[in-house]
Amino acid sequence: MSTRERAAELDAQDPLAHLRERHHLPEGLVYLDGNSLGAMPRTAPARLQHTVAHEWGERLIRSWNESGWYTAPARAAAALAPLLGADADEVVVADSTSVNLAKLLHTALTLRPGRGVIVMERGSFPTDLYVARGVLALRGGGELRLVDGPQDLLGVLDDDVALVSVTEVDFRTGFRWDVGAVTASAHAAGALALVDLCHSTGALDVDVHAWDVDLAVGCGYKFLHGGPGAPAHCYVARRHHAGLPSPTPAWFGHAEPFAMSTGFTPAPGVQRLAGGTPPVLSLTGLLCGLESLEGATPAQLQAKATALTGFFLELLDAHCPELEIATPRDPARRGAHVSVRHPRAYALVQALIARDVVGDFRDPDIARFGLAPTTTRFVDLVTAVEQVRAVLDGGEDTQERFAARTAVT
Amino acid sequence: MSTRERAAELDAQDPLAHLRERHHLPEGLVYLDGNSLGAMPRTAPARLQHTVAHEWGERLIRSWNESGWYTAPARAAAALAPLLGADADEVVVADSTSVNLAKLLHTALTLRPGRGVIVMERGSFPTDLYVARGVLALRGGGELRLVDGPQDLLGVLDDDVALVSVTEVDFRTGFRWDVGAVTASAHAAGALALVDLCHSTGALDVDVHAWDVDLAVGCGYKFLHGGPGAPAHCYVARRHHAGLPSPTPAWFGHAEPFAMSTGFTPAPGVQRLAGGTPPVLSLTGLLCGLESLEGATPAQLQAKATALTGFFLELLDAHCPELEIATPRDPARRGAHVSVRHPRAYALVQALIARDVVGDFRDPDIARFGLAPTTTRFVDLVTAVEQVRAVLDGGEDTQERFAARTAVT
Repeated sequence: MSTRERAAELDAQDPLAHLRERHHLPEGLVYLDGNSLGAMPRTAPARLQHTVAHEWGERLIRSWNESGWYTAPARAAAALAPLLGADADEVVVADSTSVNLAKLLHTALTLRPGRGVIVMERGSFPTDLYVARGVLALRGGGELRLVDGPQDLLGVLDDDVALVSVTEVDFRTGFRWDVGAVTASAHAAGALALVDLCHSTGALDVDVHAWDVDLAVGCGYKFLHGGPGAPAHCYVARRHHAGLPSPTPAWFGHAEPFAMSTGFTPAPGVQRLAGGTPPVLSLTGLLCGLESLEGATPAQLQAKATALTGFFLELLDAHCPELEIATPRDPARRGAHVSVRHPRAYALVQALIARDVVGDFRDPDIARFGLAPTTTRFVDLVTAVEQVRAVLDGGEDTQERFAARTAVT
Repeated sequence: MSTRERAAELDAQDPLAHLRERHHLPEGLVYLDGNSLGAMPRTAPARLQHTVAHEWGERLIRSWNESGWYTAPARAAAALAPLLGADADEVVVADSTSVNLAKLLHTALTLRPGRGVIVMERGSFPTDLYVARGVLALRGGGELRLVDGPQDLLGVLDDDVALVSVTEVDFRTGFRWDVGAVTASAHAAGALALVDLCHSTGALDVDVHAWDVDLAVGCGYKFLHGGPGAPAHCYVARRHHAGLPSPTPAWFGHAEPFAMSTGFTPAPGVQRLAGGTPPVLSLTGLLCGLESLEGATPAQLQAKATALTGFFLELLDAHCPELEIATPRDPARRGAHVSVRHPRAYALVQALIARDVVGDFRDPDIARFGLAPTTTRFVDLVTAVEQVRAVLDGGEDTQERFAARTAVT
């Protein structure tokens, strides 16, 4: 059996194959960047058209009630919760990932008074580090203590640590932390644990309850298919709901937003972390994305992701042995993307895009291929590796036309 | 000449009459709630459809470059700046009003070290008060000093005041502060001045340069016609750009967002106050809204708003003398909405909505009518007052069916 035949058989046996049908992908495109922007749910154009032309255009302000704009964040939270292993009322959908991370870092520091240290990975998505330093600066002190990986964690935990915050899946390499183990270590040191799930939810077996993690943050536009810049979300474990602080109080987090009272009375639980007026159009995109995942369990999504990444690694090993694989071989320690290091990674990615294989580049030397269990087929990976081989054989990665950088890469 | 004939003549002479044609309003509806959600620009359905179906659906991640998603916030800022009397590079479009207000309050407190007092109005939009208390709490102290109006301002200014923050137009009464005078008083006391322009921009002669105000915040979904929950914006006067703090650093505010460096190097000037990934769909709505205002000057908008509010007050005086007008009579001291106090204001508003006149209610006793200079006609006001009269004459404001409150009012 040829590799392509084997891939076709894997696709035929895929229990999640129907999810691809819920999304639109252009004919002939191999899209391996769903970890940056997920494909569009087929429902999105008509739904957004209705929201814009009817709800906004015809019904105007009445749509806050009539069309459920007001309840849209809670409906998104309810749809999202099963993908996190959370209860609906432990999740709030609002703002950007950056803003939500800031809320949760403030929350953790308030819940652990007398402790001023946040532990993070040195290789975190950089904004996570900026946000952490920003939060500490606003509070007038504290320390951001950086680790290079799990091996360093125990050595930095002491009585000053308020929070250990890790991104489950590294945005460059795809390395995956054992969040349950991190949480146990943090708790043993009297600290809280936070996980950034931007590269996890919708692709991996996320289970915040099983991990016992205290706090989580994630975005809506990658594996959740919510559209560009879709609203982000926070999770707070129920045990912290009583007495949960309101570090950034605003009216949608008020117990009675329309009472317009001068004092802030927090809404119950995590709802108090909602912010200002939600961006309804972007939120509508997120609702379409979450509906496109309906019925898929985190375990199923991860099984497919593991199979896809395993198959892709096998193909790269067989056909492109000169590429250095940056992603862990251990299926338990990798996420849903595969990265290779290459001295001309930028040009490699551009040359592949010209061949209708879309991955992305991350400074300085990473070519990254996101394998979304919702929309990626095994046959796509055969095509992708054929095209990688063709780029390398043709020396296209050395050509100036692919090496010139544009604004966003 | 009848009142309706006079109104029709005012509409015929209106130099901004063409702006109504740029927006969609349902046939037969008198929409006086553009200060809560502006009418839909006629361009919005097709534009959003293109953004969703083509840019997201067909072009996917490539649209960040190709379709200008990446530059959309800067394009929105450039379109907005003339309506503020600002330069484009003094404005950043991002996040919600609440998040932006928090950024600016932190900025002010950092720019005035050793001063820990924020002065605000007791009757501010409540979220402004929540945000201010939240900001002070995060910084470990300080004082929120409340005033009841301009008459109290000088009495509370001292060497401890870092910032005087006022909302130009009161969301309940429509009372309008003299922002230039507030700024002069704040500066004389060594403090900075901030203005919340949520109920101003797009309707009044906003001029941040003439006022010499240091900081401003505003929202996109009222008089700017940006759609429900459209992104908000900040203004920072150029004199503060050198050394401007970055209270909430995130990647779109980085000098080189895609360098993915572990340290935060702020972008030039106010751009450093951008947050995380912008909500592209909602931002597209805002761009439509700003384009629908193109060519209208703040002075023209205010002239129309003043004429509308003056005419509406005249009609209310003549036909509904039993209603208590809450809005100042002095055209210089009122914004673009007219409010009346009524013991059954909620039912009054609901009864009017049933008669296709949409205003809104604000606790406890305010019926509010927003007169958007972009879309409100003088003849609409004649209809509105006829319907108010009919509601009062029929005692509909006393009927139970209109008094039962729904979730959002």
